[in-house]
Order: sequence, then structure tokens, then C-alpha cells
Amino acid sequence: MKDIYSHIEDHVDESIEQLFELVRQPSISAQKLGFDKAPGLMKDILERNGFEAEIVQVPNNGLPTVYGYLPAATNPESAPTLLFYCHYDVQPVDPLDLWDTDPFEPTRVGERLYGRGISDDKGNIGARLAAIRAFRDVRGGLPCNIKMFCEGEEESGSINLPDLIAERGDDFRADACIWEGGGRNLNGDPFMYMGLKGVLGVGLSVRMLSGDAHSSYAAILPSAPWRLLRALATIKDEDERILINGFYDAIVEPSAEAVAAVEALPDDAPEWLDTFGVKSFVNGLDGEDLRKQLTFQPTANITGLDSGYQAAGQKTVLPALAKAKMDFRLVPEQRPRDIFDKLRKHLDKHGFEDVEIQILGAVNPYRTSLDSPWVQLVAETAEEIYGRKPVMTPNMAGTGPMFDFGETLGMPIATSGIDHPSHKIHAPNENITVEDFLLGARHAALIIDRFASDWG
Amino acid sequence: MKDIYSHIEDHVDESIEQLFELVRQPSISAQKLGFDKAPGLMKDILERNGFEAEIVQVPNNGLPTVYGYLPAATNPESAPTLLFYCHYDVQPVDPLDLWDTDPFEPTRVGERLYGRGISDDKGNIGARLAAIRAFRDVRGGLPCNIKMFCEGEEESGSINLPDLIAERGDDFRADACIWEGGGRNLNGDPFMYMGLKGVLGVGLSVRMLSGDAHSSYAAILPSAPWRLLRALATIKDEDERILINGFYDAIVEPSAEAVAAVEALPDDAPEWLDTFGVKSFVNGLDGEDLRKQLTFQPTANITGLDSGYQAAGQKTVLPALAKAKMDFRLVPEQRPRDIFDKLRKHLDKHGFEDVEIQILGAVNPYRTSLDSPWVQLVAETAEEIYGRKPVMTPNMAGTGPMFDFGETLGMPIATSGIDHPSHKIHAPNENITVEDFLLGARHAALIIDRFASDWG
Repeated sequence: MKDIYSHIEDHVDESIEQLFELVRQPSISAQKLGFDKAPGLMKDILERNGFEAEIVQVPNNGLPTVYGYLPAATNPESAPTLLFYCHYDVQPVDPLDLWDTDPFEPTRVGERLYGRGISDDKGNIGARLAAIRAFRDVRGGLPCNIKMFCEGEEESGSINLPDLIAERGDDFRADACIWEGGGRNLNGDPFMYMGLKGVLGVGLSVRMLSGDAHSSYAAILPSAPWRLLRALATIKDEDERILINGFYDAIVEPSAEAVAAVEALPDDAPEWLDTFGVKSFVNGLDGEDLRKQLTFQPTANITGLDSGYQAAGQKTVLPALAKAKMDFRLVPEQRPRDIFDKLRKHLDKHGFEDVEIQILGAVNPYRTSLDSPWVQLVAETAEEIYGRKPVMTPNMAGTGPMFDFGETLGMPIATSGIDHPSHKIHAPNENITVEDFLLGARHAALIIDRFASDWG
Repeated sequence: MKDIYSHIEDHVDESIEQLFELVRQPSISAQKLGFDKAPGLMKDILERNGFEAEIVQVPNNGLPTVYGYLPAATNPESAPTLLFYCHYDVQPVDPLDLWDTDPFEPTRVGERLYGRGISDDKGNIGARLAAIRAFRDVRGGLPCNIKMFCEGEEESGSINLPDLIAERGDDFRADACIWEGGGRNLNGDPFMYMGLKGVLGVGLSVRMLSGDAHSSYAAILPSAPWRLLRALATIKDEDERILINGFYDAIVEPSAEAVAAVEALPDDAPEWLDTFGVKSFVNGLDGEDLRKQLTFQPTANITGLDSGYQAAGQKTVLPALAKAKMDFRLVPEQRPRDIFDKLRKHLDKHGFEDVEIQILGAVNPYRTSLDSPWVQLVAETAEEIYGRKPVMTPNMAGTGPMFDFGETLGMPIATSGIDHPSHKIHAPNENITVEDFLLGARHAALIIDRFASDWG
């Protein structure tokens, strides 16, 4: 593989420029920002790298997926097929004033590269394309068929992906799948994960008046922000127990193997305390209990509160409307639609029929077995690239539409990528290092090589 | 008075253009917006109307008051002096998208005039100046000395006014005072009031993380919005009872005369229900009980909630920070500083020492007697102008710095003005009618005339 690795290293500046080109194009799915041009650019970049590419219309007027197919150099009919799952959409950039650079003008400072999406997930797209280019330039083509599935609304909860998979899933099926994510943890160990939590994202709103009133009327008129906060307060108690009737019913106990893997994970608690500037975790958790909570427990999180006047000084207003956004991270085998129904019933039961709920995202949780041959291949190649045994996580605390590929399309999934906890994904000053990028590209190349021979 | 009334009517277009000039100049005290030019324009307009005018620097770097003095045409030394209290600052304009016109481009649509501050309180300034101009043009000058006190931070809670009155109060002292407010109610009856509630405005904030985290960490990291809403929930119960220890202690029972006045007020409940689009009031109140609640009870109102992501779609964030703004309307003899101390103790007692409180406004409540000769004069002249007996309110549910003039400077206070409940003050599409303006100007003129003869 030296020829491939050397090519990746020698052409890293070009690969970074290609990544910068992707980052420069805004593609914020939550705000539908930049999608006049982003799918076309994604398709163009796949084509420049030898793919037959297509902008795939997504059901329910979703933001398009960009799909590419690159056949093996020889005998593609009999060659095995590898799918890379990625997404070209990014998170919103606010609070913009906390960015040191323009989020859509990628900037290199020493060995660190800054920009929205430069890690999550455009960096992975770039690293995989660097590996693929190396095979084409050095060896005249790929040893297996490659499919690139670049989703356009992952950061908005992949809400239309189940429908797309139902409609065209066979086109995207492969013999194995590499997910986004994977990389190195705070100790420098490679890590990979075999599952993701699901999510139900909701917007809650309550209107009590036809329009804002002068706050002197607060003595006699009902208040939307007071009502909203009373409704929210019924959802979770102070010990973090979620009070929605039946919320925990569908949860299956993680396997002994999964529990053992979490117990064996390194203790990142000191780094988390430092990163987030906190003195302790919820309910005083630490050690294995903390990691089990993060891995196996669902959440009821408030992502936003919005009512009345929020600028400088004071406005004497009784707000007509109050809004909250929440996300519930779900674990196997909770289902977002079921949790939505239970939340609706819960609010009704407590007299909050007037609090409206809008679904903003719905993804099923997924967790695959740690001992599949594909997981073993990815783990062994990670050890070769990084020089250390990978840390195996049964499922991440985050969310992605792994269910639709792993369960619905039935392909084995493992992760490989450029991640590092210093990347500030979803936050201001998102970044990667050049080394992160190179390691991710080398690992993608070795996976391609080993997959072609073992599955061929 | 026919000569004066005719002049007011004949020159109404010029008076409205002068009012538009004031409205066109932004002067949002909460955001310190427009104060590079607003005090100068206010001074210029007073000077154009014959006043000796001064931009008065306010202690603690407050936004300036503009003060004008116009002596009586003859024997000013022995003439009585009348003070008009007004303010040239206005409320913020958001939500801007609910305005049908530019709030700072005053617009006439038929007989209705739109713009921020066109009612509250630039409309009163304009109406009073129209009356004063009539005396100067028709009779060669004023029959009494006139002082105009135009405050620059009334909408921000007049937070520095007590210090200004302590420093220069004697300059503003007069034999009687006309307050802002007053006009007609929904039945078309003239109304006046002899008191105002006080206010404590506060900003509450709690930070739980050094920066926003990915919401997957919600399983183990503390949440600022959850903490803030739990802190808020301790402040008031679902029956509107404020739970801060000692909150109600300083309240004095209203006089039998004040209670009787409130009982005699017209029942505006149907109009309020219609205006605000509600089916009922808090705790099912109606009739006299509703009016007594509005007049005599303090409030604990949330004016704003702010945390995390509030734009379209979803952002998977665990917000580091959550903020609320509140205003507490106070009644005699509650004091804002005392209520602040009690709120701090309350939060501490409930374990919310980490919820920070910033004072955004502090005004003492004030209520004067209904049977002073000055109140009688203003009531009698209102009946002459409007053709109906005025509705007398012991105190409004709103707030203004009446205490500093009535109690500290010891002058009798009553109200006269252009108000009408359709004006949407503090809200989008603030407006007045030409008739409101003319009636307010005529009443100001008759008060000047009658005061000069009765107090001379």
C-alpha cells in the first residue's frame, strides 16, 4: 500500500483544496440554505473523481441526495461493492459571533483547517475521495465497486430517508458499508462504533393571545411563556427521569457483549469536564456508570427556548407566543413515532392540549453486533493504520440513519473516518488537522484494498 | 376658547407633520438606538415652539432628558407654573415583520396615523405643542409658565430619574403637573388616572457549560434551559400566586374611595377578550374582581425567554446558556429594591444560587388622592371637551415615574392625553387617529387656560 499512501501524502494540498471547495459552498439543511448550488457541486466533484453521479430527488420534497457509482477497474459484475455513507449538508452556523473565521471561507492556520462541515461530514467525503483518487492515479482504477451515498438532510434528522430507501433502496445496496464517524479519541486511540441512537426532534409552541400585549395586562391575561414552561416541567424530573408514560417501555437491555465493551472504554470524563467547563455530571455519575448513561440511556433535551423580547434592555411585553425545540435521543427499540404519540398523550393528560407539537426529525436507533466479519476487517485495518487496537463502541450517543441501511437494506456497517473530539462539530470554529485527514484517507484506502481481496 | 380650538383645527396638518418629524427619528431607549440625534431634534422642536430648551445630562450616563421652559406672556414671576411630563423615547419595534408599515416612516392611512411612538408618547408631545402654539399665535403668548419635561428613558424603566430629581429636581418643580396618558376608553368616555404601578425589571441567566455542546451529551451534561425553567417555576404557582417569601408584605390596602372608583369603572372585559383573542381571564376572574386584580395586584411576568437554537428546523445542541427577562409590576408601597432582594433570597433558598439576576428597571409605585383640586380641574375640563364625565382610575396597571414628581417633588398630578385602547402601544402598528390628536390638544389648551385663571 506504500504507493497509495505516498500518493495521498503527495497530493494532500490538492485534496484539501477540493475539501475547501465543498466547505465554501453553504449547505445548511435546517435552513435550506445553499441548496440551489450545493447538490450540483457535490455531483460535479464526484464526477471529477470518476464517478457516474446523480442528483437523487428525495420523497416529500426533501433536500436531494447525491449518489455516485464508480465500478471496479476489472470485472465490475463479479467484484464486490462497498458503500460509503456520507452527508454533504451541515449544521447552522449560529452563534456566528463566536466564530474566529468565516464558517464558509475555509481557513488554514498552521496544521489546523477551519470551516463549517470541514469535519462533519465534508471532511470524510474529502478523505475518501483522496483514497479513491490514489487508486485511480496509481493503479489505474479501483479493485472493487464503490458507491458514494451523500445525503442532503442528515443534519435535519434524515426525515425523508426511510421513504427514499423504500423507493430506491436497491440502487444503494452493497456488500458492506462504511459509515461516517470513526477516527481517534482523546487518547489518540482509533475508535469505531456499530450503532447510533435514534432521535425524535420536536417543536413545541403555545399561543395564548392573538398578539403581544403590554405587560401591565399580565395581571389578568394568560401568559404563553409561563404556560410553556409549566408544560415542559412535566416532561422530566430533577433527577433526569423522563415522566412521559411508557417512554422507557420499548427499550431492550443491551447485550452483555455491548455492556462489556462500554465498561472497557477509556475514561473520557476528565476531558469532558475540561472541554465543557463543568465540575460534575448529571446525578453525580462517573466511571462506567457515566459511560453507560451516555451510551444506553435516552434523553429529553431542550435545544431552544424562544419567547417575547430577547435583545438588550427591557421591553414591557406579555408575549402572545412561546416556543421550545426539543430532541429526544432514542435507544433500541424505541421508535420516534411512538414517542411522539406518547408525548402528545402526556401533554393532553396534564391539561396542555393547547401546546402544539411539530415533528422536526425522526430516526430509528440501530445497534449491530460487534463480532461480524466486516467489523473485524475494519478493526484490523484500523490497528494497522493507527498502530493501536481500536476502541469499540456498541453505539454512539449521537444519531444517524444507520437503521435504514443496516436493518432495511441488511448490510453490515462499521465506521472509519477523520474524527477527533477537538473538532468542535456542530459548534463555532469547527476544524480538523491535516493529520486527521491523512489518517482517515489512508484507512479508507486500506479498507478498500482489503475488502476487495477478502470479499472478492 | 373658540379662537384657540379653531387654530388647533386649522393647523392640524402642520402639527401632524411636526409629530411625523419626531416619529421619523428612532429613539429606542432599550437599545440606545437613535440617541445621537433624538435629543437634539427634541430640543430643536421645543425651541421652534418658543421654549428655552436644554439637553439635560442624566446621572449614571443615562439617556438625556430634554427640558424646556416657556414663560407666561406677562408677569412670569407671579404667574403659576404648569409642568407637562412626557417622554421622547419609544419601545423596541420587534417583531418587525408584523408591522404593515415602516415603524420609523410615519404613514397616514385615512384618518389613522401609524408609527412607533406616534401614540406613546410622541403623540402627547405633539398635541401639547399644538395647544401651546395656538396660544402663542392667537393670543401672543401663554397665560402661565409652561415647563416641558421630556424624558429619554421612560420605556427603559426611568432607571436614573430618581437620581436626576435628587440632583436637579427644583428646576422642574411646578404648581401642578399633567402626566402622559389619559384620553378615551373603549366606550368613548374620557379617562384619567392618579397613580401608576411600580416595576422591577430583571434579566435572569444561567450558564451550565463553557460552550454549547452537541445534544448527544444531554445524557450526562447539565442543561441550562432545564435549570432556568425549574428556577422560574418556583416563582409563581399555577393560581398566579407569587411564591417569593414576603413579596406581598409591603402592600397597603387601597382606600375605600379607590376601591369604589374601580367598582364604578366600566366593564372593559368584553373588549379585552376580543382585543387579545382570549376566552377568559386568569383564574376565571370577571366584573369588579377582574378590575381590582388589574388595578391593585402586583405581577410576575415573563417578558422573554432565550436559549439555544430558535431559527427554522432543528439544531442538535445542548445550549450552554439560558436567559429570561421578567417584569414585576408593583403596587403601593412595594419597593423594587426590596423585591429584588427577596427574589435573590428566594432563588438561593431553592438552590438556584447560579441563576444570575440583573436589574433592568426599577420604579416605585405611586397613587394620589382622587379629591385634590387639581384632579377636579382636570376632570371638569375633560367633561367640557369630551362632553362626558371622565372615568377616574386610582392607578393604571402600567408604570411610570410619577413617584418622583408626586412624592419627591410634592406636586399634584393628573392625566390628560390622546390615548385610546386601539393604539397598539408597545406593539406592531402603533397608531392614533387625527380625532384623538385634536381632542388631546384641545384638552391641553383648556387645562392651560383654566389653570392660569384658577391658580393665578
